[in-house]
Amino acid sequence: MKAKQILPFLDWARVYSRETAVSDLVAAVIVTIMLVPQSLAYAMLAGLPPYVGLYASILPLVAYAVFGSSRTLAVGPVAVVSLMTAAAVGQVAAPGSADYVAAATTLALLSGLVLLAMSVMRLGFLANFLSHPVISGFITASGILIAASQVKHILGIAAGGDTLPEIVSEVGVAMSTTNPYTLAIGGAALGFLFWVRKGLKPLLVKAGLKARAADLLAKAGPIVAIGLSIGAVVAFGLDGKGVRIVGAIPSGLPPFALPSFDAGLWLDLLPAAMLISLVGFVESISVAQTLAAKRRQRIAPNSELTGLGMANVAAAVSGGYPVTGGFARSVVNFEAGAETPLAGVFTAAGILGATLFLTPLFAYLPQAALAATIIVAVLSLVDLESIRRTWTYSKADFTAQAATIALVLLVGVEVGIVAGVVLSLVLFLWRTSRPHVAGVGQVPGTEHYRNVRRHQVTTRPDLLSIRVDESLYFANARFLEDTIYDAVAADPNIRNVVLMCPAVNMIDTSALESLEAIADRLESAGVGFHLSEVKGPVMDALRRSDFFEHFRGQVFLSQHDAVRGLA
Amino acid sequence: MKAKQILPFLDWARVYSRETAVSDLVAAVIVTIMLVPQSLAYAMLAGLPPYVGLYASILPLVAYAVFGSSRTLAVGPVAVVSLMTAAAVGQVAAPGSADYVAAATTLALLSGLVLLAMSVMRLGFLANFLSHPVISGFITASGILIAASQVKHILGIAAGGDTLPEIVSEVGVAMSTTNPYTLAIGGAALGFLFWVRKGLKPLLVKAGLKARAADLLAKAGPIVAIGLSIGAVVAFGLDGKGVRIVGAIPSGLPPFALPSFDAGLWLDLLPAAMLISLVGFVESISVAQTLAAKRRQRIAPNSELTGLGMANVAAAVSGGYPVTGGFARSVVNFEAGAETPLAGVFTAAGILGATLFLTPLFAYLPQAALAATIIVAVLSLVDLESIRRTWTYSKADFTAQAATIALVLLVGVEVGIVAGVVLSLVLFLWRTSRPHVAGVGQVPGTEHYRNVRRHQVTTRPDLLSIRVDESLYFANARFLEDTIYDAVAADPNIRNVVLMCPAVNMIDTSALESLEAIADRLESAGVGFHLSEVKGPVMDALRRSDFFEHFRGQVFLSQHDAVRGLA
Repeated sequence: MKAKQILPFLDWARVYSRETAVSDLVAAVIVTIMLVPQSLAYAMLAGLPPYVGLYASILPLVAYAVFGSSRTLAVGPVAVVSLMTAAAVGQVAAPGSADYVAAATTLALLSGLVLLAMSVMRLGFLANFLSHPVISGFITASGILIAASQVKHILGIAAGGDTLPEIVSEVGVAMSTTNPYTLAIGGAALGFLFWVRKGLKPLLVKAGLKARAADLLAKAGPIVAIGLSIGAVVAFGLDGKGVRIVGAIPSGLPPFALPSFDAGLWLDLLPAAMLISLVGFVESISVAQTLAAKRRQRIAPNSELTGLGMANVAAAVSGGYPVTGGFARSVVNFEAGAETPLAGVFTAAGILGATLFLTPLFAYLPQAALAATIIVAVLSLVDLESIRRTWTYSKADFTAQAATIALVLLVGVEVGIVAGVVLSLVLFLWRTSRPHVAGVGQVPGTEHYRNVRRHQVTTRPDLLSIRVDESLYFANARFLEDTIYDAVAADPNIRNVVLMCPAVNMIDTSALESLEAIADRLESAGVGFHLSEVKGPVMDALRRSDFFEHFRGQVFLSQHDAVRGLA
Repeated sequence: MKAKQILPFLDWARVYSRETAVSDLVAAVIVTIMLVPQSLAYAMLAGLPPYVGLYASILPLVAYAVFGSSRTLAVGPVAVVSLMTAAAVGQVAAPGSADYVAAATTLALLSGLVLLAMSVMRLGFLANFLSHPVISGFITASGILIAASQVKHILGIAAGGDTLPEIVSEVGVAMSTTNPYTLAIGGAALGFLFWVRKGLKPLLVKAGLKARAADLLAKAGPIVAIGLSIGAVVAFGLDGKGVRIVGAIPSGLPPFALPSFDAGLWLDLLPAAMLISLVGFVESISVAQTLAAKRRQRIAPNSELTGLGMANVAAAVSGGYPVTGGFARSVVNFEAGAETPLAGVFTAAGILGATLFLTPLFAYLPQAALAATIIVAVLSLVDLESIRRTWTYSKADFTAQAATIALVLLVGVEVGIVAGVVLSLVLFLWRTSRPHVAGVGQVPGTEHYRNVRRHQVTTRPDLLSIRVDESLYFANARFLEDTIYDAVAADPNIRNVVLMCPAVNMIDTSALESLEAIADRLESAGVGFHLSEVKGPVMDALRRSDFFEHFRGQVFLSQHDAVRGLA
């Protein structure tokens, strides 16, 4: 393996120029402005002190720049992983305690180790087993759950709940204690942020800005909202009127510390760490591949695993919590012109600056403003259009998606994603266990054979040509036997059966035994049994077996040969 | 649903004749002679008092005769289910205690309810998900484990152990305490039974008997061995010399009693009950279908579930333990001429007679003789030839089989079968996630297109024809994208790509999104993207989606049309 594959930055570092540096710096400034409020907000969502979000946005970015393969991915705390962190850490420690923070840090270390182990074992392909509808359903449901969990901060009430019904009922009960000042700040921030997202860009464009510049400027909305709300708290002394603020933040560098090495805690957190790693990897690789494709670059899934793994280890040793590549911020980084991972290093420097010099200001930041930031960000994750498309196209995929959404909302994020993955695999197996079967005939004037029920084709009464549209394996072996026996029993004129195999990509041992049983049984009934269009790899396997001791028929290269040969 | 489907006996009861009755009676006598020692022995294998085996061979046979759909299946205690019962009940109660017997009875009730529930939910197809190599490996390993567990009875030593290494080491430690009288009886019984199985039939045939009659007579071997060993114990007073005998057996009718309704016990036993139901159902339906096919009868899987479910409920209310259709005894029943399930009712009457009148005799039955019966019976389950065949034909199937065998022997029956099932499913998914892909060309002089690497075919430089041999779904969607992008990137002459879909039996939502991405990306690169030989159901689904908003290429009926159309 070349050094370049382990340390992808060697690839671009050689040709780094002044122009590239300027592009990267500009992108870094914009991403920093976006990332500061997000880091604070997502840490709060994870149940952690907001400054932990800042810590998770410094060293991890540097680690990813060194080990990751995407040139424009922006890592850091993200909404879904923060929610999953809250769910996992809430099981082992009380929110607000020092143990809670330590457990979150340990979770980052475990996620990092899981990702690195996946990289070493080249398990990047595992991400393929998360189907798109399940991911999209998971993200939509997480978005709804996250938004609902922030309503209490907007109202300034004390309410808990882990599932949507719990959250709704707790908010309903506590609603009468709404703090009017908090609601005013939260409502104003929400309204402002929605307006920035929908209404500001057209205005800026009308004022003469280019569309892209207007877009990027609109991303600064949250920092403006946060600045204004801090100003309001300080000006009107709202913290004395029941508006909850972030409070004192330790100023200075993030602590370099080792997370817990308690074996019991590791064991408790490991399943969650594996799930967080997989979900984080899928989110990250999806955005990395989308962006790389636009510039005709390539992403190496195993390098991505290394990059994300090192980023999480970096988070763990610097007082952070699990991180991954974020959708929105990576797109902003890309659109703002980032060309190399050095943009990430510059961003890290920006966040470090904020941590060192701005923390006294953040003490007055009202939680309601952070909640508004979260709500506006996660509602853009809700993709109802994808659900409608899935429903139209495939009821099986919709079933998996709907189950994921329902379970995330009603039971929890971890149960939801696991059930979605398992259900989509089970549905695939179910479909392949009852394959489509067609009687086929000749399309007149051609050598092409198609389904008798769908095409105008010619057939012969003494010859049954049957096409099974699936690999033959244990789950459908019995089905194959039944299908052929029933078809032969239904028509006494049949002298020969041809099983057409263009869709048979594999025949396993169980199906081989079924084919032998069919051959023996049809032979004893005086009916010939033949195969056509058997693929090369399948034929190779049959030749290795004792199949041709049972099978007395012929194997034809094409269905047309079979029909002519059996005339 | 017709009454006949619920109570299949209505079908044959109408035409029942004197001749049929004679056939059924003869078969019943032979099966009874075989079943009495088996029932005693398998109950001992399950860790239960031997008479429990007799109880499990009376009422369940009647229940199956009423509700089952096979005309010749013989139900009762079987080796593998007895081993699984021992494993499950041993977890919740001490062997030899009254609780142990009660738990076994409860397990029968739960298995019955699980089978009935599967019947109501029409889940008979679940049996298809046990692949032949996994079942065969499971039965072989169970046979070895059972035989090993009986060695202590042959030697007359006290030894335990649940796994093969444990059993071997415990027998090794205790071997020095071997009881010579026990060993003499056990060794003689073993030698006699092996000779009956291998050497007696040729002798009888030489003496003028027909092969089938010689076969059936040889099945009486165990009852002779048991009779002789009882005689030896009584004649030489061996029970006073350390030979362990079965001991006093309650005489009379089996007790009609309700099993335990303790919710905690139910919950503990439920996973085992589900596994026992599934394994028992697979064993039973395999033999039922094999025998039915010989007489061109049909088995209805859901009626079988009802029949076996009622048989287990009957076992539970009459002091028995889990039962299923046995391989060996069903074949004997069939060969002896049984024509209807009434043969089972007659067998039940025979076992009832033995329970009422022969129990004082069985008190002197040495356990070593029962152990010899078990060893000879289960060693015929060991099928090394099947393992060799699986190895030759498919390394993936062999992997699942070998894992099943190793885990059954080293960890336990339940872990083994579950791991085998899961592994065979995972291996299938793994194979479909990396499908075979072929570039195709025209077989000269035909309209047939095959793999360029395997056949002499003609191709055109501007046209890439690529065939993916698998349904397109989430696990291989990314693979499809990579394959096509790499192929196009490798050859700048390509102007058109045709994806040939004869093996694509389904396109799920994830793969649909990949196809749209491919269409968009190739279009932007100035390369045409087309499909050929898309199957009817797949085309229907594509038409329902928004695919044709992204896809500007053509869909050709045949690959030949595509090549001509793109000339």
